[in-house]
Amino acid sequence: MNEVGRSRPAGTLLTSVDITPDELQLAVRNHSMPLEALRYDITPVGLHYLLIHFDIPMVDASTYELSVGGHVRNRLQLSLDALMARPSATLAVTLECAGNGRARLQPRPMSQPWLSEAVGTAEWTGTPLAPILKDADVRDGARDVVFTGLDRGVQGGVDQHYERSLSIADAMRDEVLLAYAINGRPLPPQHGFPLRLIVPGWYGMTHVKWLRSITVIDRPFAGYQQARAYHRRTSDGDSGVPVARILPRALMVPPGVPDFMSRTRFLEPATHLIEGRAWSGRAPIVSVDFSSDGGVSWATAKLQDPVSTFGWRGWTLPWDATRAGEYELCARAIDAAGNAQPLDQSWNLEGVENNAVQRVRVVVGAAIDQQTPADLL
Amino acid sequence: MNEVGRSRPAGTLLTSVDITPDELQLAVRNHSMPLEALRYDITPVGLHYLLIHFDIPMVDASTYELSVGGHVRNRLQLSLDALMARPSATLAVTLECAGNGRARLQPRPMSQPWLSEAVGTAEWTGTPLAPILKDADVRDGARDVVFTGLDRGVQGGVDQHYERSLSIADAMRDEVLLAYAINGRPLPPQHGFPLRLIVPGWYGMTHVKWLRSITVIDRPFAGYQQARAYHRRTSDGDSGVPVARILPRALMVPPGVPDFMSRTRFLEPATHLIEGRAWSGRAPIVSVDFSSDGGVSWATAKLQDPVSTFGWRGWTLPWDATRAGEYELCARAIDAAGNAQPLDQSWNLEGVENNAVQRVRVVVGAAIDQQTPADLL
Repeated sequence: MNEVGRSRPAGTLLTSVDITPDELQLAVRNHSMPLEALRYDITPVGLHYLLIHFDIPMVDASTYELSVGGHVRNRLQLSLDALMARPSATLAVTLECAGNGRARLQPRPMSQPWLSEAVGTAEWTGTPLAPILKDADVRDGARDVVFTGLDRGVQGGVDQHYERSLSIADAMRDEVLLAYAINGRPLPPQHGFPLRLIVPGWYGMTHVKWLRSITVIDRPFAGYQQARAYHRRTSDGDSGVPVARILPRALMVPPGVPDFMSRTRFLEPATHLIEGRAWSGRAPIVSVDFSSDGGVSWATAKLQDPVSTFGWRGWTLPWDATRAGEYELCARAIDAAGNAQPLDQSWNLEGVENNAVQRVRVVVGAAIDQQTPADLL
Repeated sequence: MNEVGRSRPAGTLLTSVDITPDELQLAVRNHSMPLEALRYDITPVGLHYLLIHFDIPMVDASTYELSVGGHVRNRLQLSLDALMARPSATLAVTLECAGNGRARLQPRPMSQPWLSEAVGTAEWTGTPLAPILKDADVRDGARDVVFTGLDRGVQGGVDQHYERSLSIADAMRDEVLLAYAINGRPLPPQHGFPLRLIVPGWYGMTHVKWLRSITVIDRPFAGYQQARAYHRRTSDGDSGVPVARILPRALMVPPGVPDFMSRTRFLEPATHLIEGRAWSGRAPIVSVDFSSDGGVSWATAKLQDPVSTFGWRGWTLPWDATRAGEYELCARAIDAAGNAQPLDQSWNLEGVENNAVQRVRVVVGAAIDQQTPADLL
């Protein structure tokens, strides 16, 4: 099927370090957030990470309607205007892909080959979901709320619309939004125009884009993306634990300047201010540590206020890099529930929930040929 | 240097099909345009392709100034307000990376591993460059105009700001802009905020982002990105031909729905309307051909008007896909100067100017398990 005839289905494991043509096809479509964009409280559109399973649907907003139905007494059909006429809320929310870090696993699960940067923080504006479910008047015995996207494709041998569910209790949480705007502008196509689900604190697979319907059901939702995909399991026989809330992570802006190809960082000998962000979907971040010796010794970073209840918080630390040499810089976060980032990543079959400490190789004081800019010649 | 200890410098050639960790680092930072976005006349921000050599600089617009100097009688310092107070123009321009298609070459040059989608068409608003050069009063003997970016990094062993040049004649062309807006909004950081060069018809490396200065010089510019990189050469000894204007290319929206991992397309047996875009920076597109048998036989597509003088033009063609089976769909464009896309790509050392015909594998009438959406159960 693949153009070079070497297709490996999602779920296959590879022990090679190199990335297959199939993974490359995903990597050129989807993108992570360049780490220098950690400098922004709110990630500009186009820098926020994106993971799109199938194709981006092209939706006509003038005829768009959201259906709310299933195990309810009062089915609803809501136009975009009707949704926008309802009470609105704006929340800054840090989103991260459940597979962030996957390409660092050995053996490597075949799927989107993320390194460490599948994250972003946007200001989402929308209308709270709970009052809509109240208007729909959920019947007794309701169990799950299914969110169906307009996007369709084949995954795991199943032709499907992208669908995920929440329990009634999770769906009724105050902070769950049906969002029609990002950073003060209508959603662009790639973020789910005209409407997507936002579930603060949860990994990205939950935030269904291009939402066409909400269906209340009286049994556990058994769809592919809910019952088969997005589980932490260590073998095929393992029923696994569903992926839900985001584990803590800290990332630094890699200091200095990069080499184009290796992305190795070069710095002048000096004291450098290291800056970054940290977040957790499980509890507030209480501590960020920094190491310049590969994780042997750690120093405590200074924390800034979080950008919001569900958004990341900044951290800074001056690093004395006056001695030339090679260093491995590390960052790790701990949240108030005691969740901490591991030094070494435990492995799982789908490559989800990877939050090992970030490692950035830097070279201080390297002798490199200089090209004087034309305006300084 | 590389985190898995297998770094290969840019310029290295690899005969493996798989992608190295270094290439993956570039692939997760930069992104191409998902092909379904060919449906938009103007590519939404966030879907337009991006190639960023070093890091995205964070620029304070309130203190930003563009310097214009060198071999001129009248040096200029222009604030963003001063640039925006000058006459403005808006042009829809198709931009494509010179390395588009690189990852399909064998052996594969080590650099950004593009497949076929490193393209986009945006509406750029800015002020024409020629009147600024006139105000600066270029001296006799001027030869090149150097554009220096604020972005800095190491490439080919050279610590450099990103810099490219144009001849005086090319720099004075009416359509060359200093752009401060895209699609009616200020440039986002990743597209060169607050100011970038736009040179319609030329490959992307010419359109210097985060422009800090324009320097007129009286000799050929010898900077890395001009004299060493971006040449079509077949061996190390070959002095090569500089990359300049975009070769013709047609791309189709892959029809049907994709498999998540292999991106193989599945279609129902029916007549499908195939749609796409075609462009050339050398002359207007005069013809687009479509093949459903891997390039053995061709049919002529119907052309739409170009979106602008420097923008792509749409094309459509109904494809009779009523017979189940596997097909290789191809598209190719020809421009008014007689430039045509080759069936097989000739090879070059840097992997630039690749414009072989697009090939899309599709399966018509496959039997696939269906997951009925929750709202239809």
